[in-house]
Parts: sequence; structure tokens; C-alpha cells
Amino acid sequence: MELGVKTMEWRDGRLYILDQRLLPTDIQFIECTDYKMVFEAIRTLAVRGAPAIGVAAAYGMVLSAGEALSAKGGDFHRKLEEAGDYLASSRPTAVNLFWAIDRMKRLADVRKGSKPEELYDLLLCEAQKIEEEDVAMCRTIGEWGQSLLPEECVLLTHCNAGSLATAGYGTALGVIYSAVSAGKKVRVFVDETRPLMQGSRLTAWELMQSEVHTTIICDNMAGHVLREKGVDAVIVGADRIAKNGDVANKVGTYGLAVLADYHQVPFYVAAPTSTIDFSIVRGEDIPIEERDSSEITEGMGKRTAPFACEVYNPAFDVTPARLVSAIITERGIHRPPYEKSLREGEGG
Amino acid sequence: MELGVKTMEWRDGRLYILDQRLLPTDIQFIECTDYKMVFEAIRTLAVRGAPAIGVAAAYGMVLSAGEALSAKGGDFHRKLEEAGDYLASSRPTAVNLFWAIDRMKRLADVRKGSKPEELYDLLLCEAQKIEEEDVAMCRTIGEWGQSLLPEECVLLTHCNAGSLATAGYGTALGVIYSAVSAGKKVRVFVDETRPLMQGSRLTAWELMQSEVHTTIICDNMAGHVLREKGVDAVIVGADRIAKNGDVANKVGTYGLAVLADYHQVPFYVAAPTSTIDFSIVRGEDIPIEERDSSEITEGMGKRTAPFACEVYNPAFDVTPARLVSAIITERGIHRPPYEKSLREGEGG
Repeated sequence: MELGVKTMEWRDGRLYILDQRLLPTDIQFIECTDYKMVFEAIRTLAVRGAPAIGVAAAYGMVLSAGEALSAKGGDFHRKLEEAGDYLASSRPTAVNLFWAIDRMKRLADVRKGSKPEELYDLLLCEAQKIEEEDVAMCRTIGEWGQSLLPEECVLLTHCNAGSLATAGYGTALGVIYSAVSAGKKVRVFVDETRPLMQGSRLTAWELMQSEVHTTIICDNMAGHVLREKGVDAVIVGADRIAKNGDVANKVGTYGLAVLADYHQVPFYVAAPTSTIDFSIVRGEDIPIEERDSSEITEGMGKRTAPFACEVYNPAFDVTPARLVSAIITERGIHRPPYEKSLREGEGG
Repeated sequence: MELGVKTMEWRDGRLYILDQRLLPTDIQFIECTDYKMVFEAIRTLAVRGAPAIGVAAAYGMVLSAGEALSAKGGDFHRKLEEAGDYLASSRPTAVNLFWAIDRMKRLADVRKGSKPEELYDLLLCEAQKIEEEDVAMCRTIGEWGQSLLPEECVLLTHCNAGSLATAGYGTALGVIYSAVSAGKKVRVFVDETRPLMQGSRLTAWELMQSEVHTTIICDNMAGHVLREKGVDAVIVGADRIAKNGDVANKVGTYGLAVLADYHQVPFYVAAPTSTIDFSIVRGEDIPIEERDSSEITEGMGKRTAPFACEVYNPAFDVTPARLVSAIITERGIHRPPYEKSLREGEGG
């Protein structure tokens, strides 16, 4: 059994991105030849998920370096800087995007003396390192996380924090894949995750590829399922984690955390440390993206609301740290108080 | 300003039912000439909402009486009995359906000696009485309910407990219409209500018809809205209320009640007393309808889940009485303990 799915691939100087908007009915790749195409892929959610858009943006920086190389005249470094700013403006909430771009920029700064051709190779190498590290981190997160689960378990997840949200393997779903690999018997309820259905379109799809017992529900059924179906844990990913452990993630996560708390079910967040933003003290300070109303009113091919009706469409919400039982990173299992445990090396 | 919308109409011996499956984009009526057409309209949700299906079923009984009249031979009363059993099998959860059918059957029993032609007229008169009573009850519920709301208020509702769910005016939305009529400044957040979007398709539509300030959200945004938007009360309808005050209503109601409780926002249920089933001691004993998985996986014109994926689609859930701040019926405002207050005349 192959666990997980490939989200993107660098080949012959181009970035091939699996177009997640078309899943689960079509499998098509977007061939990105310049960094503006990567920007578009991120903005339109062809690629999404905090770690995945970090990796995509890193490759976007490589493409921009290639463009700067072949352009006649102009400042190579200034062009790289501009491309970084542009890519960073694609989406506001997930911090991995800014983290990856900064890491690429820092490398270019440190190696300012190198020839552009040499710098291109170094940047490509760094992007590949970010990608490889991401997969490795997911595997470690998976191992730490699965240690929290009983031999037989029923889990509930929201949105997609899987292979498709990372360079491969996944964070929340990485924990599930690791549990399955360890021989545990896992059943997963998947919130479909309105408005864009990342749960039913993406999570259910990749779990089924990996032959995990999967049941799709509507988001509003989570309370009923938590009460009736013996759920052992809720496990989700994160788009940005504040210093105090408050978690920004796909809208609906907060409500799910309240429900888990009410039913005394552990609520776990799985994310690489690159998702932690130590410059943000509390969740209230995390910028929350609002997206177009048409995602809600006609997102699935059919108009489902009156014309001209007001719509509120926040893409994320913030779950306060007090509702989070543990944050699982590649460094270990972090328990409250997070201010302290997130700073430390291994949580254990 | 006209408050509310007409759901069905009896005219020239036929029942015209507004086809709610086509709203908000098309306004079409189904012309029911026999009781089996009424059964189909209820089963396929062309007409839905506990009080509305009660009224529709009552008219279905009138149509069956007409059919029994024109049929040659056979027992008029036996045919009526059969039609009642058949109509009662259309949907399992809303008790108003059985209540209305029983009321029609009882009348036929009491007037067993009457000539069939006379009985037909009596049955028609009874169905019209059920319809008129329903509208009157909604208006009284509205008045009681609006007394609970401040002069300016932000409300959150789920599914459709409006004109479209009743013979007119509505229960939860009746409270809103009454508040508006009383000059109160009301803003309403409407859960879209997956899978069939009764919130965005029906509630938003009828509130806009009545010029109420309406904002559609996805169901999973309710937690975020409760925390961020100063919601003063959550108000919903009911499909069946147990003797102890446990409430079966559209799936998602339970989760919303937990969220309201967590945010210390009052959670009100508005329903006519015909929704109370004193034969059911606790919510666990209310039968919960499970509907077809295709409602979730391809309900809006586009496949949004992998083929062959397991789906769980309960149409209702049960909210325990301890999460319900008050039940508003035409008799008044009932407060816990409901075992006592639901039995009494006026709650006050």
C-alpha cells in the first residue's frame, strides 16, 4: 500500500503542480514556467495547504531566478526580491509561505557575491531541501502523533492536512498513515469542509487511495458523530500557530474544537515547526483571509443562494490554545502551556 | 412589507405545492391531483418543514377522500385508512405529519355515520382548519418569541423554519418577522445548511423577500460568527420535541446548541405544540431519518467526493433539553424543567 500522493514535482526546470481544484474527478498537472504562474496556482487554490504552498513558493523563487538570469540587464537580486514580495502577496494566513520565501531570500543575501548562474543552482538546491525536509518532517510528525492513538480508533478530521497539503505524506493525515503503518485499525470520519470541499474532494480521495476506512459527513454532522460514533480523537492541521499555542486553521476548526471539548475527546493539531509564528503573540493577531462570496453561493456548479444576498466567507478561524490537547510537530508532542513547550526542543 | 411566503394552496379540488427544490432560482408549483402525488412531494422534499408537511398530508387525506368517492365500490373508510398509512410512511422524524393524519382519521371515525359526500366536505373543512390554525399559531409563536429579543439584535438560524416550513409566517422566522413588525432592528446570520441548503436557498430567500438584513454563512462558520459578531440569540425550529424537552431538528442543530452554550448565547426553539410528542420520553427514542448519500456527494450538480466512498447522512440530530434556553410555542415561553412547563397551559 502506497501512503500519500505527490502534490508537485520539479522537472526539467519547471514546476508541475497537481491541480487540486479538479480532484477527485480529474487528475491534471499545471506546468509552471514562471513565478507568476506559481502565484496564480497558490491564489486560486490549485495548490493549497500551508506546507505545500511554502514548497511551491520556494520553487517559484527558483523560477524567478531563472527568469532573472535570462532577462537582459537589470539587477538579479532586485528581481528576486520583487518576485518574493509578489509571491508573498498570494495568500495572507499560512505562515509557511512567508517562511519559505524568507529562507530563499536569506540564502541569496548570504551568497550575494556568487555569480547568478551559481546562485540559481544554490536556490534550486535550497528549494529541493525545503521539499525533502517537509516530507521528512511529516513522517516524524506522523510517528509522534500515532503514538497518541489506541490500537483501534475512530478519528475525525477537517479540511485536508494530508499529502496534498504538504510536499507529501501530510501532517494530520501523516499521523493516520503512520498509525495504519504501525498496524493500527483506523476509521476516519471526514468533514466535507465547505465551501471548497477539501475534505470530501481531497482528504477522502487520498485516504481511499491509501485504503483507509473513510466516511464523509457534512460539517454540521460533526456534533452528532462525536456523540454517537465513539470518536477517539479529532486531528487537524494548521495554517499558523501563535506563540501562545492559538491555532489558525481552515474555518470550522474552532467549532470542532469546542465540540471535541464538550464531548471530552482529545483535539490534536499536527504541523511542522515552520507553521509556528513566534512573532505573533496571540491568535487574534493572525490575519484571516476573506474569500469571494461566489465560493459559497455557486461553488459547485449550481446557484444555491438568492442573488444579491450578503455572504460572509472567512477562510480560517482561530482555535484558542485552551481547546488544543496537544500540538504535534517534528520535534515532538507539545502540551500546554504552549508558550513554554513550543519553544523547547523535544516535547516528548 | 409582506412578511412570509405562501407554501401551498388548495384550489378547485387540487393542492398546489410550491416546489422548494427549485428555489431560489425557480418558482414553480406542483399540481397534486391525488394523495400519492402529495406523498411524493413530501418524500422528495418539494414540501418540507414539520408544520408544512402536516398541512400537506391533511390535504393529501382530502384528495384520497375524493379518490375514494369517485372510485366504484370499495370501502370509503378503508381507503382513507390506507391513504393515511401511506402518507405517514413518507418521512419518519417530524411528528406533525402523524399528528395531522391522525386528526383527519379521527374526524372520519367520529363521523362514520355521515354520507361519503358529506364526509369529504368535513375533511376538507378540517384540513383548512389545520392550515389556518398553523398560520395563527405561527403568529402567536412570533409574538411570544419576539418579546425575548432586544431592540437591536443579531440572530443566527439554521435550516428553514420559516413561511416555507409552515402554512405561512414560520416558527423561528415568525419570531424574526414579529420582531421586525414590532420595529426592532434585526440582523440575521443564516447557516446555509448542508446538504440541501435550506438555509441559503430558502431562509435567505424568504428573509430577503421581507427585506430583513441577511448574511449567509457556511455551517462550519457558526462558531467563528458566535465569537466575533455579537450574536444575541440562536433560534431554530423543531421536527419533534420529546416530553422532556429534547429537540430533534435539522442535523447541525445539536452542534449549534453546544456552540451557543459555550458562548453563553441563548438557544431558542420555536415550534407549535403539535410538534411535541408526549409519547416520546427522551430524544434518544426519536427515529432519525438517514437519507441518500448522493445528497452529499453530488447534491449541487457537481461530483464533490470520490466514487464508492462511504457517506453518513443523518437528516436530523437531537439537542438535549439542557442546551435549550426556552421552547416557544403558541401557548407561551416554556422554560426548564420542560417535563413540567410543556405540560402546562401558558408558560409566560
